[in-house]
Order: sequence, then structure tokens, then C-alpha cells
Amino acid sequence: MAPATPFLAIDLERMQANIARAADAANARGIALRPHAKTHKSIEIGRMQVAAGAHGLTVATVGEAEVFAAAGLDDLFIAYPLWLDPEKAARLSTLAARGAAISIGVDSVDGVERLVHAGLAGRISVRVEVDAGHHRSGCGPASAGVVAAAAMRAGVDVEGVFAFPGHAYAPQAGEQAARDEAAALTIAVESMRTAGISPQVISGGSTPSFSASLDVPSPVTELRPGVTIFGDAQQWELGSIEPGDIALSCHATVVSHAGGRVVLDAGSKVLGPDRAPWATGHGRLLDHPEARIVQLSEHHAIVELHADAALPPLGSVIRVVPNHVCIAVNMVDELLVYDRDGDAEPSARWSVAARGRNH
Amino acid sequence: MAPATPFLAIDLERMQANIARAADAANARGIALRPHAKTHKSIEIGRMQVAAGAHGLTVATVGEAEVFAAAGLDDLFIAYPLWLDPEKAARLSTLAARGAAISIGVDSVDGVERLVHAGLAGRISVRVEVDAGHHRSGCGPASAGVVAAAAMRAGVDVEGVFAFPGHAYAPQAGEQAARDEAAALTIAVESMRTAGISPQVISGGSTPSFSASLDVPSPVTELRPGVTIFGDAQQWELGSIEPGDIALSCHATVVSHAGGRVVLDAGSKVLGPDRAPWATGHGRLLDHPEARIVQLSEHHAIVELHADAALPPLGSVIRVVPNHVCIAVNMVDELLVYDRDGDAEPSARWSVAARGRNH
Repeated sequence: MAPATPFLAIDLERMQANIARAADAANARGIALRPHAKTHKSIEIGRMQVAAGAHGLTVATVGEAEVFAAAGLDDLFIAYPLWLDPEKAARLSTLAARGAAISIGVDSVDGVERLVHAGLAGRISVRVEVDAGHHRSGCGPASAGVVAAAAMRAGVDVEGVFAFPGHAYAPQAGEQAARDEAAALTIAVESMRTAGISPQVISGGSTPSFSASLDVPSPVTELRPGVTIFGDAQQWELGSIEPGDIALSCHATVVSHAGGRVVLDAGSKVLGPDRAPWATGHGRLLDHPEARIVQLSEHHAIVELHADAALPPLGSVIRVVPNHVCIAVNMVDELLVYDRDGDAEPSARWSVAARGRNH
Repeated sequence: MAPATPFLAIDLERMQANIARAADAANARGIALRPHAKTHKSIEIGRMQVAAGAHGLTVATVGEAEVFAAAGLDDLFIAYPLWLDPEKAARLSTLAARGAAISIGVDSVDGVERLVHAGLAGRISVRVEVDAGHHRSGCGPASAGVVAAAAMRAGVDVEGVFAFPGHAYAPQAGEQAARDEAAALTIAVESMRTAGISPQVISGGSTPSFSASLDVPSPVTELRPGVTIFGDAQQWELGSIEPGDIALSCHATVVSHAGGRVVLDAGSKVLGPDRAPWATGHGRLLDHPEARIVQLSEHHAIVELHADAALPPLGSVIRVVPNHVCIAVNMVDELLVYDRDGDAEPSARWSVAARGRNH
């Protein structure tokens, strides 16, 4: 019996090729990879990334760190300026006591003091977050030395500096974002060296800036792409992945031809509601590149095909590429694994083990 | 120890008032309520709605129906034009065999035939879905009789007709959507009567059209609001709930003051990424009505307060109202219940039992 739709399917052959391509590209330039595991949240995939040479994983929350560490993937950078309340501090302390190598983000002297107050100095290390133009978290690059010096004085191991050039998420923005990242990290490193601290790790990276970050002059020693492993409709539209390399899709059934259009049973509760202002729709179809999802509800996607195209019949299964794969994966409990394109049956089901681990 | 942020919190006193207010308003007009349980996905809340007089619950998927039926809430309408593949048909058959009263949506003669082919005629009933102007699923209102007649001829119990006036989700659109709903359902009922079928249930409803659907001349005998129970930032901005009645918020911690703004640890992986074109931001703050979330990532919300407002200190906890509460609830495994506003500790944790039941 075919699995009930909607569900998320991995094309294993493509995914492995994406892992290898990123690893080879970074390796050729002597740059370490620490892929962001928030995208897949799956032990099996984290293991494959490390087997392909990744220098540990990046995660976003203490909860994600706990899931991966419990599976032995315990060289982890939590790329987030955590505010260590007693609950989170106790959990990090437990991870450190079990031998996990944990570093966290910090973007203020207050954040450093909080870590020290929590008794974690010398037990976990920090990387100073700097703003490279995305204007989210991160101190100004020239302030990196102040934050790092406060940490060092308090006995906190300063592993390095990092930035997330998230402003790469716009058309033709990848290369400029990589240049901004390089400029911000250069200033940050100088600021730290002036304060007497030599960062071991200089970390950057986002999926749309990934290839540019490898090419432009930059001090980066490590990159942390996440979406690269699967691709999604955003990356397709930004030109950072070819549709033929997209390794995750949502299998959805045509349930209605209402209004002469295609209505699919995949909505925002499996694809995710993400729609960037520059996106051409609410997702793309792997086998109908000209089609657009023009309307999305929680359990309906309305598809408009090319005007001359025949409507796929009721009951047929269509492969949808979510706009933002990190959100789609976080909607489901398992990923169905197809060894290669065209396989009728999945060969495995992988748990999205860190799904919903928001804190 | 305070619960780790971010988490979703229910204000029980407000939620119970919202349940009672909707029940009283419908009751005063002799209209049945069948609240949409996709919003809360929780057994405890479904039970409260039924105790307050709801005539069963509405759900969106077979999986949601299974969860509620297993808890004894087994008078269920699946408001969706299901395409009954063998897997879903077998599960519906099991529900019917266990005594659940299940009706499903159908918007085509093909859908009826599929149900008959699956051996479910006489075991579950159907309601014909008509399009009331939202242009999602649903046949044209004048075609309701054709679909209903095909069902009747095949021995399928036709319980009635339904519409979802989802075009109410726009500023000042609620009343017109309720009028469109009334007009479409009037045509649908006439079309069914012409075909010799008298619908027992004439069902409509969405949260932003809810009060108008009670007020305008309409043939509706039942309404199916979902979000009414909690409210959210969308309903606040559409004027269908007062902020003082909003019963669910996300507790989030200020983790950074980067760029002189407030950075919260609640992002799209707990608030949901929904942002309608008319929304003023990515969510609202319950205690700072003038503030706006101007940027949202997976684990960051960037808040801009009133220009004269002092920045809430690092480590302080802020209550965020998600734009679309149905998506936010589906992101988490449990809801923390606070008996009333101002309580320091939750009195219970309710499982989001039907979370992720997309098929």
C-alpha cells in the first residue's frame, strides 16, 4: 500500500551527491564544514555529514544539541546568543559533564556574564557573533574584541567569531552577502587580535552565499550551510541549486479540480507557510517547473499549470518542493527515504529526532 | 524553575470565556456549533467545547479524526474533500466500525464514486462542499444537487452542504464573506432540493466571518469557527477579537539588544511563518500593542517598540501573539496552561495530541 499523502520524501542519491559536492568544494579551498543540522534534525543525516568530513555540526537550540549529543554527534556549535536561564544552564552543564564539546554564540558582555554566573566558564566555549549586514543578532564587528576580552578575563574559552549573512536571501544577493561577511569577519578578527585574542575559528555561511563565500577573498576558516543538503524552492529561485539536485519533496495527491485548477492535499501544515516577498509562489512542483502554487491553506495547495497543460487527474500524486525546507521538515515526525528517483517504495523512514526542540 | 522559553501558554480564564461567548452567541440564534479542532488539536479543549454545547467537532484530516475519536470525541466532520486511497479508506472504515459518526466533504461526482468504490457507502456520510467565494475547493453552488444526487443514487447518506468563506481573511471582509456564504449556501440548498434532497445540515463559518454569519440573513444551521477559541494577531488586526480576549501567547526571552532593538528567542519555528499581505508584522506583543515584529527567523524575532519606549532588559520574558495560532500550536508538543492572567506557574500541560497529523 502506498504511503498516505502528504508526506516528505528524500531522494537519497541526490542528497548524498549534495553532501559530497559541498564537502569537496570546501575541502578544495581548505575550509572546514560544520553543516547546520536545523535543516534536517535527523541523526542519520548528521552521521552522513560527519562521515563526509564535517567538523561537527551546527545547531540552533540546547534541545537540538541534546538530541544530537545523545546519538554521539557531540561536537556541536549552538549558533545562537543563548540567554542562560537556570534551566538551560543546567542542561548545558549536563552535556559538558558527559563529554560533549559545546560552544555557543555570545553577542554581548551581558551574555558572557550570564554564562559565568551560570558556572559554565571553562566548561563550554564561546564564539562571538557579529552582524555582517543581516541586522538580526550579533554585535558590531568592531566590538568583537570587547566581548571576547570580557570572556577571556572571566576564564571563558573564546573559540572564535561567527556571522550569518542572512541578507543573502534575496535575488542576486549571494555574492554581496559573502563579501559583507568577509568584511565583517575581517574587522572582527582585527578587533579581537587588538584585544590580544587570536580566534581559532572564523565562521560564516548561509546556503545562498555558500559558493560565493568559498570564492571571494575572506578570512573564513569554516562555513555552516544548512539547506544545501536538500535545496528548496527558495534556493531554486535564488539560483543556488538546480532543480535536478533538489533532494526533498512533498508527495501530495490531487483531491479536487475545483475552478478548473489543481487542488493538492499538501498545505502550510506540511510545506510550511514561508513566502518571501520575492518568491513566485507558495512552492514549486518538481515535475512541472512552469507551474506555481498560487494559494495555500493549512491542507490545500492551489496549483496553476501552464495554460496548455492538461490537469493531472484526480488521485494522482504530485511532488511539491517547499519554499523553505527547514520549516517543512520541522512539521513532520519522519522523512521517507527513496534510494533513487523513480523508486516506487521507500527504503527507510528516518525520524526527525530534533523536531520541535525549540528551547 | 520557570519553564524554558519559548513556549506556548494558554490563559485558561480567557479561553473558557471565549468558548462560552461563542456558544452563547450561536445558541441565542438557534445555530449549532461544530468548532474546528485543527486550531487546538487537544483532547482537553475538545472536551470543553463539547461540554459547552458543541454538536461534535470539525477536523481536517483522517489522522485528526483518529486522535479525537480515540478519546471518545467521535462525532466528527472532516471538512475536506478527501480522496480515498486504500490506506485512508481502511482507516475511515475502522473508525466507522468502532461506532464513530463520521462525515466527510465531497466536491465532485468522482469523489463520491471513490467513496463508493472504497466500500464506505452507508458507513460514513458526506456533506457537499461548495465554493462561497474563497475559490479553494468546493463545487459551484448550483452543482451541489448533481453531486448530492450521485451520492444518494449510490446509497451514500448525504448529511448536508458546507462552505468555508476563507476570503473573510482580509480587512473589512468579514460581513461580505458571510453574505457570500449565505448566498452560496442558499443556491446550494435549492439545487439539492431540486434534486430531491433536503440537507439536514447547512454549515458555514470562519473566525473572521463568525459574528456576521450569525447576523446576516442566512440558511446556515451550523458554524465551524476554529481560531475563535484563542484569537491571534491576525484576528486582532481584522478586529474579530479584542486583544484583552486573546487566550494564547508565546512566552519568549529577550536574548539580545543588537542594533538597539529587542531580539526574542521565539522565531518562525514556534510562532509559525505566516504573514498575510495585510498583516502589520510577524506577530504582536500582548503587553506592547504599539510594538511590531519587523523581522522573523527560525529562532529570532526582531521587535521594534515605540520610539520613546525603554528596551525591555536582557533576560526578561515577553508575551508574543502569533499571527496564525493554528500553525503555532502545530509547532509544539504541549501547551502550558495558566489558570489566569498573572499566574507565575502553569497549572497543567496539555498535549497537542493531533499535532502533525497531516494525513
